[in-house]
Amino acid sequence: MAKLYHFPLSPFCRKVRLCLAEKRIECELVEERYWEQDTDFLRRNPGAKVPVLRLDGKTMAESGAIIEYLEEVYPDPPLLPRTPDERYEARRLAAWFDDKFHHEVTSKLLYERVNKKVMGLGYPDSKNVKAGAQKIKYHLDYMAWLLDQRRWLAGDTMSIADFAAAAHLSALDYISDVDWNRHAVVKDWYAKIKSRPAFRSILADQIPGFPQPAHYSDLDF
Amino acid sequence: MAKLYHFPLSPFCRKVRLCLAEKRIECELVEERYWEQDTDFLRRNPGAKVPVLRLDGKTMAESGAIIEYLEEVYPDPPLLPRTPDERYEARRLAAWFDDKFHHEVTSKLLYERVNKKVMGLGYPDSKNVKAGAQKIKYHLDYMAWLLDQRRWLAGDTMSIADFAAAAHLSALDYISDVDWNRHAVVKDWYAKIKSRPAFRSILADQIPGFPQPAHYSDLDF
Ligand SMILES: N[C@@H](CCC(=O)N[C@@H](CS)C(=O)NCC(=O)O)C(=O)O
Ligand SMILES: N[C@@H](CCC(=O)N[C@@H](CS)C(=O)NCC(=O)O)C(=O)O
Repeated sequence: MAKLYHFPLSPFCRKVRLCLAEKRIECELVEERYWEQDTDFLRRNPGAKVPVLRLDGKTMAESGAIIEYLEEVYPDPPLLPRTPDERYEARRLAAWFDDKFHHEVTSKLLYERVNKKVMGLGYPDSKNVKAGAQKIKYHLDYMAWLLDQRRWLAGDTMSIADFAAAAHLSALDYISDVDWNRHAVVKDWYAKIKSRPAFRSILADQIPGFPQPAHYSDLDF
Repeated sequence: MAKLYHFPLSPFCRKVRLCLAEKRIECELVEERYWEQDTDFLRRNPGAKVPVLRLDGKTMAESGAIIEYLEEVYPDPPLLPRTPDERYEARRLAAWFDDKFHHEVTSKLLYERVNKKVMGLGYPDSKNVKAGAQKIKYHLDYMAWLLDQRRWLAGDTMSIADFAAAAHLSALDYISDVDWNRHAVVKDWYAKIKSRPAFRSILADQIPGFPQPAHYSDLDF
């Protein structure tokens, strides 16, 4: 069976978990405390990052490269649209979340509030937390603007753009940092993706020291 | 004609320039002072980053998504290998450079020494410069280890992995921050890619305030 070395709240790991589950690739989850950099882990991935996926006799790192591989080898169901234009848009938005949103929001809220504590790096820097709380509004507005014109973030079909976005937002939702009331259209989108079977494992995550809030796994949040 | 809004030393822009040139897509270069965030620029890319490519009546951002698009619509010559395994490896290594190398090296050396001055943000932070100078050694060692077993970084064919790596290293070479004598095999690889016609425009770049060093454009460096 496939094995995913991951950390529960890592958005990159969550994105891969969602893609694996949508494609019904069964996968054992192994929690990896990547910041401890143990030698087995470094042997699996010299990049020293999670996710690391063991599949088809290969050990793979880099979530974007992993997902393109899955898409080529396990094309059903597809997680990229059909035309080059639409595929471009899905990839652009996945990168938007994994680069820009990650830098401006996830690293400022989740990493300050949770990762620092878990890794024993001290207290959140309130300047960062404030900056992240400010920036997430602008990203939710951008999503609302997209979703006013489209069923899913990148167009009429669900794609890696939705999984990347949902991976970051679900991790932030675990610490109640997403204001779902800001835009009905964004809340509807999240309700839709949250109710997919592929989301179940993510809704079951529990982080020691951070009790899951009630709304987190509630489909009527 | 296509138009690329870029900044000369940006590794993400250089990667796209190399891919466009290999595919012989003629392209006008427009220098974009992206940190000034003028409104036309923000209209073209709400992400406010370069590169931004105007091609086929579309305006595109995110270098990775742009390159996958080019690969699908202008497949000749291919910049990704043929099998899913090899394609995975090329994408993984491109991401290695654009994520890990960028974070550990490019942002610590190039952004400290050049971008800060160009943007009027003051002097390099010597702690960062030292950290970058230390880390680049480890990355050159990793490249040497790969190139001991392969003709190109990701395998037997030149790929986006080589262009991503060459984009970062060429920008660092402009400020003489690459020790080409560390590994003959890395130097040979760079000599090979540097002598390609696609590299010419990059070797002609000039940054006001930072005179081009003699070895930079020399094919016998
Ligand atoms: N580009 C990588 C990023 C993965 C990543 O940054 N993972 C974080 C956890 S969320 C990590 O392992 N960080 C450790 C490090 O950066 O050394 C991917 O897409 O897989
Ligand atoms: N993920 C983007 C990264 C591009 C990027 O970071 N570009 C830099 C210049 S090297 C930039 O525009 N930075 C401005 C910013 O981050 O706001 C890509 O691959 O195109």
